[in-house]
Amino acid sequence: MTRLQATYEIESPVGVARAAGVIAGEQSTGTFIRLASETDDLRTRSAARVEAVEVTGAADHPALPCRLAADRYEQGRITLSWPVETFGPSLPNILATVAGNLFELAEVSAIRLLSLDIPDSIAAACPGPQFGVAGTRALMGVASGPMIGTIVKPSVGLSAQETATLAGDLARAGIDFIKDDELQGNGPACPLSDRARLVMQVLDDAAQVTGRKAMYAFNITDEITDMWRHLEMLERLGASCAMVSLNSIGLAGLRAVRDRSPLPIHAHRNGWGLMSRSPHIGIAFPAMQKLWRLAGADHLHVNGLASKFTEPDAVVIEAARSVQAPVSVDHAHGALPVFSSGQTPWQVAPSAQALGNDDFLMCAGGGIMSHPDGPAAGIAAFRQAAAAQAQGVNVRTYAADHPELAAALDTFEGAVTRG
Amino acid sequence: MTRLQATYEIESPVGVARAAGVIAGEQSTGTFIRLASETDDLRTRSAARVEAVEVTGAADHPALPCRLAADRYEQGRITLSWPVETFGPSLPNILATVAGNLFELAEVSAIRLLSLDIPDSIAAACPGPQFGVAGTRALMGVASGPMIGTIVKPSVGLSAQETATLAGDLARAGIDFIKDDELQGNGPACPLSDRARLVMQVLDDAAQVTGRKAMYAFNITDEITDMWRHLEMLERLGASCAMVSLNSIGLAGLRAVRDRSPLPIHAHRNGWGLMSRSPHIGIAFPAMQKLWRLAGADHLHVNGLASKFTEPDAVVIEAARSVQAPVSVDHAHGALPVFSSGQTPWQVAPSAQALGNDDFLMCAGGGIMSHPDGPAAGIAAFRQAAAAQAQGVNVRTYAADHPELAAALDTFEGAVTRG
Repeated sequence: MTRLQATYEIESPVGVARAAGVIAGEQSTGTFIRLASETDDLRTRSAARVEAVEVTGAADHPALPCRLAADRYEQGRITLSWPVETFGPSLPNILATVAGNLFELAEVSAIRLLSLDIPDSIAAACPGPQFGVAGTRALMGVASGPMIGTIVKPSVGLSAQETATLAGDLARAGIDFIKDDELQGNGPACPLSDRARLVMQVLDDAAQVTGRKAMYAFNITDEITDMWRHLEMLERLGASCAMVSLNSIGLAGLRAVRDRSPLPIHAHRNGWGLMSRSPHIGIAFPAMQKLWRLAGADHLHVNGLASKFTEPDAVVIEAARSVQAPVSVDHAHGALPVFSSGQTPWQVAPSAQALGNDDFLMCAGGGIMSHPDGPAAGIAAFRQAAAAQAQGVNVRTYAADHPELAAALDTFEGAVTRG
Repeated sequence: MTRLQATYEIESPVGVARAAGVIAGEQSTGTFIRLASETDDLRTRSAARVEAVEVTGAADHPALPCRLAADRYEQGRITLSWPVETFGPSLPNILATVAGNLFELAEVSAIRLLSLDIPDSIAAACPGPQFGVAGTRALMGVASGPMIGTIVKPSVGLSAQETATLAGDLARAGIDFIKDDELQGNGPACPLSDRARLVMQVLDDAAQVTGRKAMYAFNITDEITDMWRHLEMLERLGASCAMVSLNSIGLAGLRAVRDRSPLPIHAHRNGWGLMSRSPHIGIAFPAMQKLWRLAGADHLHVNGLASKFTEPDAVVIEAARSVQAPVSVDHAHGALPVFSSGQTPWQVAPSAQALGNDDFLMCAGGGIMSHPDGPAAGIAAFRQAAAAQAQGVNVRTYAADHPELAAALDTFEGAVTRG
C-alpha cells in the first residue's frame, strides 16, 4: 500500500457521497473549484481519492450545529486515501492531513475519524515503541502475568520527601510499577529533580530487600528542552520510566522525547475525553493510538473496566486490543495497554479475558491503598486474582484460602457491575 | 492573582455544585475520598477551589453519553482555581490541569472550557509573541490598514518551481503576505528546502521592482529538530515568516519553535473544529488562544466572516478580539488575528467594523485569484475596499470610480449574506 487511508463516520446536509468529495478536495488540492493551474496530471498525482462510500441512514436534524441546512442529513461511512509523496513519514503533517480542517466544514454535520491504515513505508520510517511489552517486563522483572501498578495519591500536595516515603512503602510491599499523577509535573511545590532523587534512593533501598526494583514513571511533561534535561537526570539516577501527557506535549513533542529517551515512555492521554467522548465529532482511539505508537509511546492508557470515567467497557477493551495489534501489515510496533481508574482485583479476570492475554499493566490507586490490611495486602490480592485467572479458577473460589484476596473482594464488591 | 482560574459550562447528572467539587478533586488532590495522607494543611495548600457556581437550567436527557443516569441534568457555569505553586509557568502542565481528565468524568454530561484567567506571574515567565502586530507590519512594510494575503493553491501538487512562479506573480502584483497551505509541509513531492530557496529568489527579485518584500509563511510543521533545522534554513534565505500547524506540533512544540525562531510564527489551527464545534464538549477559542500566545504565536487563524466553515460570525469576531486582548492584567502579549476562507472585498468593512480596528491579516485564495482581471486586480480591489472603510465610504459608492473593486464586488456578490 503506497497510500494512507482513513475511514470516517459522517453525517451530511449535502449527502454522504458529495461530502466525501468535498473533504477529499479540502484535505488535498484544497479546492473543488478547479483552478487553471490544477491540471489532470496534478490531480492524479496529488489529490485525495474517495475509496469507499457507504450510506447507513439519515436524520431530520443535524447532530452538530451546521451552517448548511437541509431537510435530511444523510449518515454513513467514507474511506479516503492520500499518496504518501505529499507528506512523507512526517507524523505531524499526517495528522494535519487526516484530522485537519475537515472537522469544521459546513458540508458535514457530524464527523469522526474511525481508523487509519498506515502504509509500511511510513511504519518503517518511524521509530515506534523502544521497549514495548517485552522491554517493560524485563525492566520490571515480571516475566508473566499482568503487571500491577499504582498511582501516588494525593496527586498533588505531597512534598518530594513524602512522595518518596510512600513510594518506598509500596516498593517494599512488592509493587511492580508506580506513577506520578498527571497533575504532578515539575512545579515549585514538588520539583521533579528533588522527587526523582529521593524516590530513586528509596527504590534502590527497597530493591536490596525485595531483589527487584519497582518501575517508577516520573512525569516529565514540560517544555521540550526541559523534558530532555529531565530524561538525562532520570538516566543518571537509574530510573526506568518517563511519563508524558500526550495532549500537552503534542505528537511532535512525543517524538522529541522518544528520540532522546533511554527509558520506556509511559503515555498518559489525559484530555482524551475531549477528542472522543462526543459520538458526533472526534477521533476514535484505535486511529489515534497508531500515531502515538509510531512516534514512540511504549505504554498507553486506555481507562479500565467499570472505571470512574464514562467510557463504556466495550470501548475500553477495543482500545486495549488496538494497542497490541500491528500498526501496519509488516510492522508490529506493539505497546503495553494500561488499565487504570477504579481498578480492583474484581477487574483482573474480566480484563484478561476480554483482552485475550495478560500483557497489560493494571494501575490501582484506592484498589491497593484502601485494602483493609494495607497496601502490601492490596498488592497480594491483585497477584492472587491474577493467579486465579491464570489457573482458570473463579476468583471467589480462589479467595477461600487467600485471605488478602477475600478481604479485597469484600471491600470492593460491586465494582464490576456494568457491562 | 496568585491562582489560575478556569470557567466551564457544564451539565451534570449529580447537580452543578456537586460536579464542581468532583472536578476540583479530580484536577488537584486526585480524590474526593480523603486519604490518611491528605491533611487539612495539604488541602489548603494544594487543592483546587470552587470559586463560583451558577445554575442556569436543566435538561431531561444528557447532552453526551453518560454512565451516570438521572432524571434531571442540571446545567450551569462553574469557576475553579488552582495555586500556581503546583505547576509553575509550565504551559503543558497547565493544559493538563485545566483540560485534562475532567472531560470524561461520569459526573458531567457536557463540559466546555470557556475562559482562563492567567496570573501575571505566569504571563511574565512565558515568552509570548516575539513580533505581534507591530513587528509583522514592520517586516511587511505595511504601516496601516488591513494586511492582504493569499494562500498558494492548489494546496498540494505544485512543484517547488511552480510554487515559486505563482509566488513571484503575486509579489509583483503587490501582495503583502503569502502562505503555504497547511497540507503542504515537507513531503518528497515538494521539499521545503527547494520550495523556500526558489520562492525567496522570486520574492527578492520582485522586491527590486515593488520596493517591498512580500512576507511568505513557509509551513515548517514537522518533528521538533526538523523544525529547528527549517528555521535556520529560512533565516539563511532571508525569509520573514514560519508557519506551524498548532494541533500537530502541540503546545510544547510551539514553544520549542518560539525559543529558536528568528521569525514571526504564523499559527494555523487546523483541526480546531474537533476542539470547539460541539456545543457540549471542548474548549472555546478565547481560552485556548491565551496558551498559544503565551507559548509564542504571533499570528492566529480565526476563520473569517461568511467563510466556508461552519463557525458562526459572532464566534469568529469574538475569537479575533480575544487575540488582541491582554493575556493577563499586566501583560499584553498581543497577536495578529488572521481572517481566512472565502474572504473577498465584501468582508473587509464588516470585519474591520466588528473588530473595531484594522490590525488584522485577511487571507483570500479565490477572492484574489478568481478576480476576472487577474490577481493584481484582485489585490487592488482589497486595498480599495480597505480605503473605502478607512474613509467611512460605502464600498459600492467607492467602487463607482474604482473598477477593480467594482469587478470584485460583482463577481463575489452575495458572499456576505449570513449574520
